Amino acid sequence: MIDLFSDTQTRPTPGMREAMARAEVGDEQSGSDPTTNALCERVAALLGQEAAVFMPSGTMCNLASILVHCRPGDEIIVDDQSHIYNTEAAGAAAIGGVSVKPLPTRVGLFTLAQVEAAIRVPQRTAPRSRLVSIEQTTSFSGGTVWDIGTMRLIRDYAQARGLKAHIDGARLLNAVVATGIPAADYAAGFDSAWIDLSKGLGCPVGAVLCGTRDFVEQAWQWKYRLGGAMRQSGVLAAAGLYALDHHMTQLAADNAHAGRLHRAIADVPGLAFDPTAGQSNILCFTVEALGITASTFASACLEEGVRVRAIGTHQIRATANLDVDGAGIDRAAEVIRAKAAQFAARVA
Amino acid sequence: MIDLFSDTQTRPTPGMREAMARAEVGDEQSGSDPTTNALCERVAALLGQEAAVFMPSGTMCNLASILVHCRPGDEIIVDDQSHIYNTEAAGAAAIGGVSVKPLPTRVGLFTLAQVEAAIRVPQRTAPRSRLVSIEQTTSFSGGTVWDIGTMRLIRDYAQARGLKAHIDGARLLNAVVATGIPAADYAAGFDSAWIDLSKGLGCPVGAVLCGTRDFVEQAWQWKYRLGGAMRQSGVLAAAGLYALDHHMTQLAADNAHAGRLHRAIADVPGLAFDPTAGQSNILCFTVEALGITASTFASACLEEGVRVRAIGTHQIRATANLDVDGAGIDRAAEVIRAKAAQFAARVA
Amino acid sequence: MIDLFSDTQTRPTPGMREAMARAEVGDEQSGSDPTTNALCERVAALLGQEAAVFMPSGTMCNLASILVHCRPGDEIIVDDQSHIYNTEAAGAAAIGGVSVKPLPTRVGLFTLAQVEAAIRVPQRTAPRSRLVSIEQTTSFSGGTVWDIGTMRLIRDYAQARGLKAHIDGARLLNAVVATGIPAADYAAGFDSAWIDLSKGLGCPVGAVLCGTRDFVEQAWQWKYRLGGAMRQSGVLAAAGLYALDHHMTQLAADNAHAGRLHRAIADVPGLAFDPTAGQSNILCFTVEALGITASTFASACLEEGVRVRAIGTHQIRATANLDVDGAGIDRAAEVIRAKAAQFAARVA
Amino acid sequence: MIDLFSDTQTRPTPGMREAMARAEVGDEQSGSDPTTNALCERVAALLGQEAAVFMPSGTMCNLASILVHCRPGDEIIVDDQSHIYNTEAAGAAAIGGVSVKPLPTRVGLFTLAQVEAAIRVPQRTAPRSRLVSIEQTTSFSGGTVWDIGTMRLIRDYAQARGLKAHIDGARLLNAVVATGIPAADYAAGFDSAWIDLSKGLGCPVGAVLCGTRDFVEQAWQWKYRLGGAMRQSGVLAAAGLYALDHHMTQLAADNAHAGRLHRAIADVPGLAFDPTAGQSNILCFTVEALGITASTFASACLEEGVRVRAIGTHQIRATANLDVDGAGIDRAAEVIRAKAAQFAARVA
Repeated sequence: MIDLFSDTQTRPTPGMREAMARAEVGDEQSGSDPTTNALCERVAALLGQEAAVFMPSGTMCNLASILVHCRPGDEIIVDDQSHIYNTEAAGAAAIGGVSVKPLPTRVGLFTLAQVEAAIRVPQRTAPRSRLVSIEQTTSFSGGTVWDIGTMRLIRDYAQARGLKAHIDGARLLNAVVATGIPAADYAAGFDSAWIDLSKGLGCPVGAVLCGTRDFVEQAWQWKYRLGGAMRQSGVLAAAGLYALDHHMTQLAADNAHAGRLHRAIADVPGLAFDPTAGQSNILCFTVEALGITASTFASACLEEGVRVRAIGTHQIRATANLDVDGAGIDRAAEVIRAKAAQFAARVA
Repeated sequence: MIDLFSDTQTRPTPGMREAMARAEVGDEQSGSDPTTNALCERVAALLGQEAAVFMPSGTMCNLASILVHCRPGDEIIVDDQSHIYNTEAAGAAAIGGVSVKPLPTRVGLFTLAQVEAAIRVPQRTAPRSRLVSIEQTTSFSGGTVWDIGTMRLIRDYAQARGLKAHIDGARLLNAVVATGIPAADYAAGFDSAWIDLSKGLGCPVGAVLCGTRDFVEQAWQWKYRLGGAMRQSGVLAAAGLYALDHHMTQLAADNAHAGRLHRAIADVPGLAFDPTAGQSNILCFTVEALGITASTFASACLEEGVRVRAIGTHQIRATANLDVDGAGIDRAAEVIRAKAAQFAARVA
Repeated sequence: MIDLFSDTQTRPTPGMREAMARAEVGDEQSGSDPTTNALCERVAALLGQEAAVFMPSGTMCNLASILVHCRPGDEIIVDDQSHIYNTEAAGAAAIGGVSVKPLPTRVGLFTLAQVEAAIRVPQRTAPRSRLVSIEQTTSFSGGTVWDIGTMRLIRDYAQARGLKAHIDGARLLNAVVATGIPAADYAAGFDSAWIDLSKGLGCPVGAVLCGTRDFVEQAWQWKYRLGGAMRQSGVLAAAGLYALDHHMTQLAADNAHAGRLHRAIADVPGLAFDPTAGQSNILCFTVEALGITASTFASACLEEGVRVRAIGTHQIRATANLDVDGAGIDRAAEVIRAKAAQFAARVA
Repeated sequence: MIDLFSDTQTRPTPGMREAMARAEVGDEQSGSDPTTNALCERVAALLGQEAAVFMPSGTMCNLASILVHCRPGDEIIVDDQSHIYNTEAAGAAAIGGVSVKPLPTRVGLFTLAQVEAAIRVPQRTAPRSRLVSIEQTTSFSGGTVWDIGTMRLIRDYAQARGLKAHIDGARLLNAVVATGIPAADYAAGFDSAWIDLSKGLGCPVGAVLCGTRDFVEQAWQWKYRLGGAMRQSGVLAAAGLYALDHHMTQLAADNAHAGRLHRAIADVPGLAFDPTAGQSNILCFTVEALGITASTFASACLEEGVRVRAIGTHQIRATANLDVDGAGIDRAAEVIRAKAAQFAARVA
């Protein structure tokens, strides 16, 4: 099986497992798990932020950030394809009492002008615009990389109007290796930012959320209240430290693999790609012109041992990850090309 | 002053005041205010629904409906210019834990196809699509009247997929007098619907929310919990009964006045109207081509004794109401025309 | 019928109705209802607070205060017989996400020592103690009057530890006429306080919430979000102004009537009174020694035309109000005495 | 250091670490982590429930149960010393909108009569009584073991009135080894129950929540929404399976150690024990008679290398766990005796 379903499905490598088994641990709730503490310091430094807290998931990183930054009745500005709006089970509203203003986008990128128009005039009858969130890279839009200049303009504009600025950095490190821009440069000046350990980095569990010391202290209370406080979490944090030491090159390989797949199928009749396609480790394309749904196409590929993901009626997402090497990518391209040709033949 | 700011600003007429002063009253919380009970029965019959509850405002009608129909983590589908999304201070999220999915529209009307695309596939990670709300007429989009056939298609499609269907009928009666379609026909089959008393009907306070007996019983508990339960509310309900007896013709007059204003200024250079403009008592137009903001234009009119409302950067809303007669409308048209000409001269 | 069920059931007097019919009105949401404004200024002055907001109910006064003072995860300290804990449908938790710490009391009065013990040590795992609320007089505990010295000690202690202090003053004015202590003296230094208009004062609808200007501005947004914002509320506010001019003596009469009832039945065998009974307009007693439930006793009295309220398995509450005069009180005493004698005879 | 602070501080043993390192894993969110699945099946069988879900903490088990069983405005009945009421940062209210009714108890045990009195009469103004939770054993009350007969009476009474019944079984297995009653007998008929892996069982992270299949499916969505969904959680679940195979005898040893400590210090002048003390692995006593606070006493013991926990102004809690053997217990007893004697000398 060549599994391009997601980079969340990867299994810990032997080296990572060994690091976990050897981890020095303590009680993280009382701040005495040395490995968790080391991971938090490492990621805070990586993102150039004051402090960090280890979380069981990226979803909790987004949720805790919203809970700290906002009060019930506030509104957050996100792209309409964002994880926060579509894939967190409405946690912002359900748990934080926070409304979401989704900006229409093509590939998850919005503009300063859209933010300007979206911030509400303060009045009793309006939600209070309170937070703008940028997803770097865009998860459901093909791993598009946000331009750092645009990020900074939006950040500054929002903060000048009393809003907080947040980075959903589930795949921020994929952007870092794609552009060569350090993570700290991306995160500089943002009120909160996080990275996921269980995506391209290949860890089994966890994410790390960063911000000021005060922000992290408040996020810690929400982590506890949400049920995310653990005990000897060093066994998980050890995987994170190992990945930061050994898997950054893997992220570069993943990005290269997605690009290789893109080049190999860019000319396949019936498949449509956005001009931004192939910037990092995710590749999206639509199969609408083949007269079939995405799930029909995904099933057809699966029969040939290639697993891709239908993420909309006609959209396919393939995600490069550490379980798939260059040969696997070539085989996937071959299968996709062949299946597209079969379906195209039926249409004609 | 010719006040076209809103139909919410009207003052009770002498006849209405007398009806209020004479009202027979009791304790509404124990179901023993006879005038409130009579109003609820009257409106339930008007809308063809089983039962009704008197509310201090239309905002509470929408909120209580959402609270009864939904649980935290649910999502409601509305138009992007709706009162629920923009002008209820994010109450759905803040109080109900409910996320809002705003459908992009030009004048507040969305299509069945949009609803089909908006309802989410049930899965753990997604909000649960639970309610679709239609605003009849569309308040911030120029009083456009929803076509009853479209309403029914959307209602049926939604209900067949487990969603509830709701009418925000703040100005439903304006649609009724505009089309001749009875309110009960509009509301038939919807899970909840309400009318406002303090808009075109000219009452000082209140709205009436209708649904099944079970829905109303649950809405009553939310009314109480929200702090909307009153005592001798018959003094307010009496105004509602009086208005239903005496002010329905006023709604027709309001609609006619808005149409008259529309015809009088439709050809003014620099003002832009939507093709649907002038269907009921609200008239919207934009002044962008004059090179000024809506609030500049509104201020200029106010200097001449005509009050209109800036409801966007470039959009003006004028609302016909019982305090403005035909002569007032003609005077308003004259002022708008003159001011537009002045600004146009500056642009040229 | 001699109706001692509650002071919320009273109907507006002819004078009050006339004041309402004559009221000058405007749109309260835009701050332009002159009568509502006058009432707010009047009550703010009466309570010695900076500003005030008119609310549809006392329940909304408590709820909005909690919503302004607290964030989700906070905890409020109240007496275990309080309206907030028992009779507001869990609004503090449901709408504010706020936990309630009910202090065990006999008649609704708690002590400084109880507050000291109740305030939680700040830590991640604990709710944040944020508000202490005092109900003056205690509604479900027989109208007991809080001692002003104790109130001040608790207020100061709480505020010194970062908590806010609130008065649920549904019947604060009954305490004022009972003790001669001005309302402003009771409310001084508290962060929020309110009085009800629809209890002893005899108005049909409404209550007035006071605090700092900033507090009131925030309470206004919650009022709007909850659906409590009205339009020409001057018709209701006029009743409040009328009552403050004409019904304060009625409150004194109510207090006197409750005392008269108490003296008339204090020695009835089988009825048990708390030593604090009879301090204001509410009189509570238990019928447990008669071997019957409170609702049996209440039903027996009702057959003789005297309506009292069963508020617990064995507790009866009688509330003096403007619909019952001295002769009514004497008749009520006579019936209660006779019924108690009948039940006592069965026990023996 | 002899650490009796808590049984949450224990570190994974070498055998447990090896099991974790070898664990077969997959993506738990898609139900394909075999080790997590095996653990869930194992614990569901142990508790005699239909299904189970792995959670990052016991706090999330309680929270998710409340979120599934209750709606905003509901009320849950717990003991006043319970973890839910005191040590979950008001999550029930903050996240679930649920009010808590804490029953006054001496050692965390309440009676059927208390539950009968606590369930509210259904009416609009009251919270809806919806859930009763029993903590077996009582964490902050000295590890007292609930009698199974009382649990069943309360469960049946509550369920007959429409409430759900829940077991907070953080230390349920300590009760099992103390009484010989199988976990499935304790949990039978309850609507939800869970056990913690990171207390006496010695795992680093996790707890397992059980109930019907439908309950677990709903709990899964809340787990996801709260941010508790993980990926290759098998690395943690493997520790749980190992502990169930190898650490049940440790729980018996812990219980025995707490009893041994109790016998060794029961007669120390100045220390006061509840008659129920020493039933499982937790031992509580007060030091009030020594004229000092609990934290003074705890500090004094710590200087001699014995760590106990101050959990109230005058209460000390010592918890036996796998890091302390019999000799450690004897040394702890010696230190406690000596320190008590020193403080007693000062009082005299």
